[in-house]
Amino acid sequence: MSNLSKNKVKWIRSLSLKKNRDELGLYIVEGEKMCLELIQNYADQVVLLAHTSAFNCELTSAETILISTKELEQISLLKTPNNVLAIVKKPINKVGLASPDELIIALDGIQDPGNLGTIMRIADWFGIKKIICSIETVDCFNPKVVQATMGAIFRVNCQYTDLFAYLSKSKSPKYGADLEGENLFEQSKLTPGIIVMGNEGNGLSDEIRSIIQHKLFIPKFGNAESLNVSVATGIIVSSFFKK
Amino acid sequence: MSNLSKNKVKWIRSLSLKKNRDELGLYIVEGEKMCLELIQNYADQVVLLAHTSAFNCELTSAETILISTKELEQISLLKTPNNVLAIVKKPINKVGLASPDELIIALDGIQDPGNLGTIMRIADWFGIKKIICSIETVDCFNPKVVQATMGAIFRVNCQYTDLFAYLSKSKSPKYGADLEGENLFEQSKLTPGIIVMGNEGNGLSDEIRSIIQHKLFIPKFGNAESLNVSVATGIIVSSFFKK
Repeated sequence: MSNLSKNKVKWIRSLSLKKNRDELGLYIVEGEKMCLELIQNYADQVVLLAHTSAFNCELTSAETILISTKELEQISLLKTPNNVLAIVKKPINKVGLASPDELIIALDGIQDPGNLGTIMRIADWFGIKKIICSIETVDCFNPKVVQATMGAIFRVNCQYTDLFAYLSKSKSPKYGADLEGENLFEQSKLTPGIIVMGNEGNGLSDEIRSIIQHKLFIPKFGNAESLNVSVATGIIVSSFFKK
Repeated sequence: MSNLSKNKVKWIRSLSLKKNRDELGLYIVEGEKMCLELIQNYADQVVLLAHTSAFNCELTSAETILISTKELEQISLLKTPNNVLAIVKKPINKVGLASPDELIIALDGIQDPGNLGTIMRIADWFGIKKIICSIETVDCFNPKVVQATMGAIFRVNCQYTDLFAYLSKSKSPKYGADLEGENLFEQSKLTPGIIVMGNEGNGLSDEIRSIIQHKLFIPKFGNAESLNVSVATGIIVSSFFKK
């Protein structure tokens, strides 16, 4: 008899929707690499671990169920399910202002899950712990975002709030990527602050642009109309770490 | 009666496979934005343009056919078809060595279509005209790559070749992203050459690593295991343009 009841399948699948993730305070993590990291470092956040016999699992703090490859296919959101799926508790993220000298990222309406996940991975690489997201930004617990973070979801805190109000209150220097900004490569030492990145198609909204003090432009030498927003984020963030 | 015969549908759909694209020397471009750019700047490369009544099309140099939204759904590879699909001639890309002082990118086994497309977009932004790809690298005319290039496919030349042999012959300085490389941010002025980026999961292959003179490492201040390869490409390429 299977350990995976119909009700459990339904419950797991329901977490593909933000509404249900918010209501239940849970999200899905998939695949061997991320689940291994989860078990090793964040076991107390795991609620359920469903794995096939190919994934060797030792976890005592949460329910673990052995399932068949076919059962995994039923609950997985991946095209190629990878032996294990975990249900994880969402952390409670409180919106706080940036401390002086803290470098953080703010996102003004990022829509693509892959972009948000990749930006969280950039933050994780450079030791940025906090990303402030406008309400319109895609949910960081969206399964596609989670997969794209490659584990950054466990360490980087995304906070959803009224971005204009947040920036208005903050005393940190505010930087924004903007096609009409100053040449990024000609800036001398950049002081830590808030780096605001705009929506994929439209860039920064007018309201947000109006309160950015330092608009920055990545100089262009060719013909592309724009850079991918996560690539632009990587280039701008890295400029704060140049000597 | 429809303008879109069953044979045409079959022909168009066959171009989702590399084998057929290579044999017929054609590839697919979709969506209003890229097709508009194609018509305005590269009309001579278009073989067929299939569009719905929502896309206002004036193209005299190629066959254009008006199709229904339902017919577009039949031939489109996009989740959300966007009014127009073009069949385009593949350019003939010859493998040439980099000129002295030319900055080019080389890819050692990039697998993800989105990553290759995004890297082509980075090349297009920075005016890099040539990307040398190892044979294992995903085909640049793969429809997902084409979409991710946002038009760079029309301007950036991808050449597939034995990367080790190519690099061995080239006299250009060879740079490579490597976790054991020197701190990228501590390099003084970088001389143009070939920037080699490795596979998503494994980085540079041992063979390629052995002939890279300048291994570069993007310093890490947090916990992520790696950066997305297109983000890393953006950060490294941009370092060649810093003052």
